[in-house]
Parts: sequence; C-alpha cells; structure tokens
Amino acid sequence: MSAELPQSHADLLERPLFAHLATIRPDGSPQSSVMWFAWDGQRARFSHTSNRQKYRNLLADGRVSFHVQDPDNAYRTLEVRGRVESMDPDPDAAFYRSLQRRYGSEGVPILDAEVRVVIVVEPTNFVSVFGGLTEPETEAVTALLQQLEEGG
Amino acid sequence: MSAELPQSHADLLERPLFAHLATIRPDGSPQSSVMWFAWDGQRARFSHTSNRQKYRNLLADGRVSFHVQDPDNAYRTLEVRGRVESMDPDPDAAFYRSLQRRYGSEGVPILDAEVRVVIVVEPTNFVSVFGGLTEPETEAVTALLQQLEEGG
Repeated sequence: MSAELPQSHADLLERPLFAHLATIRPDGSPQSSVMWFAWDGQRARFSHTSNRQKYRNLLADGRVSFHVQDPDNAYRTLEVRGRVESMDPDPDAAFYRSLQRRYGSEGVPILDAEVRVVIVVEPTNFVSVFGGLTEPETEAVTALLQQLEEGG
Repeated sequence: MSAELPQSHADLLERPLFAHLATIRPDGSPQSSVMWFAWDGQRARFSHTSNRQKYRNLLADGRVSFHVQDPDNAYRTLEVRGRVESMDPDPDAAFYRSLQRRYGSEGVPILDAEVRVVIVVEPTNFVSVFGGLTEPETEAVTALLQQLEEGG
C-alpha cells in the first residue's frame, strides 16, 4: 500500500479501462459496479446521475475503493482507495461527453444530461497487485522460496 | 433487483470469469479486489487465506457485493449481493486446486495451503445490467423514448 501511485501501474489509470467501484450503502453494506472514469494524474473522475443509489451512497459516505484490471494480464491490477472530494452538476453533460470520447461511445444520445454529476475522487492509497499478489505478499513468498532453497 | 438469479445473466456465474469483490474494512470503508470464484447454482465460493485483510474484514462484517463483467460485452454485468455463510479451512487446499483447474492454472505450486479457507457466500439479491443499464433504468429510458415518439 502506498500514498503515491506506483509507476508500474500508472498505465491502468491512463488507459480507457473499466473501474470496478465499491461504495457503501446507507445500511453499511457494500455495493459494486462497473464505471467509466477519467484520470488527470491527481484525481479520478466518474460520471453519474443525482437520482440513483450510488449518488445517495456517496452523499452519506464518501469513502470509495475501485480497482482496474489489466485486460492483457488479469493478475495485474491496481486498487485505489479514496474519498469523494466533490459531486457537482455536469452542465450540458460536457464531462460525460468527454468520457464517451475516451471510451469510443461518441454520439450515443444523452437523455439524462440535466441530472448528470461529476464525482471527483481524491486517492488516499494505492495497492498494486502483480501475479495476483500485493507487494508485501510477493516479498513474503520470495523470502519463503529463498528459505526453502537454502534448506534444501 | 431480484432475489432470483436472472437466467439472462446466469452464464456470467457459470463461466470462469473474474469476480470484482467489495468487502467492508473494520473502519467501515470499502475494499475491492479481483477474485476467482466457483458457482454451484446456489452459492458462490471464494478461496482466501486466514492471514489477510479480506478475511478479517469478513469476520467482522460478512456482507459482500461482487460483480462479474462479460468479457465479450463490457456493458453486460451482474452484481450479486449477499453474506458470508461460512469461512472454513480448506484441507490440502482441495477447493483452491479446483479453482486452479477452473481458471486454467493447474499445477502452480500452492505455498499457503495450511492457511487456505473457503468463503461461502449466500446471495440475497441480483442486479442484472445490460447496455450499462439496470432493468428499471431500461424501462424508464424505454418509456421516455416512447413519450418522445408519441409527442413528436
């Protein structure tokens, strides 16, 4: 876990991949869903509408976790933990349109522009996973293998 | 949202796809990660180890949500909400080995067999998404389009 984005996994935020976002429902249970997102090097931005459950979840508890999986290597993932910094209207769905362009869905009619909001998430921690293992887990396995080798 | 698995999305649990699992950390914030899973038609089963954070999360709060995304159609997903029914040891990592077979990773050495556990999740609700929309959202958009058509 790191407060800085590991450069080994930065591409996962830069590429138009899917965020698997976890939020907290009013009763404290988790909700998870697939989201488009944008990354400017500092903040993650999601589009949503102000009439849906996830918006209400985030109004009540702004803590989120999302992860991105490398489509070319399913065991290379990045988890981002953070909190909602702002949820503001998205006039004319301008931000949503930029996501449509990022994800190759330009021109799909937007019927809910008047309720679209931009959710800005400030990351607090990054957890990089490679080969299905986090960094501390990789270190533990490496140490174990070394012990076995030395013992054998 | 439905208490029964929608047959339109049952294949997402039957195929060896990835579960994007959300759990609750001790401070009430969400955690999300990529997991292998098995589905027997009634329960989802995950493998984990008893010395890691997710295990501690689930001991304290057994409520989970996970979703599966169709790799052939990213906008077709299924969210499963549920609760942990049991977390028991996995002697000789027999269940973990069955997951290795399901996911084509047979024969990869298992160094943590003695702490492997089977997490059994009982689903309480299913949310099927098609074209990025849940069923109620699809109905609302269809009604809106019909109104626009009738008005025009």
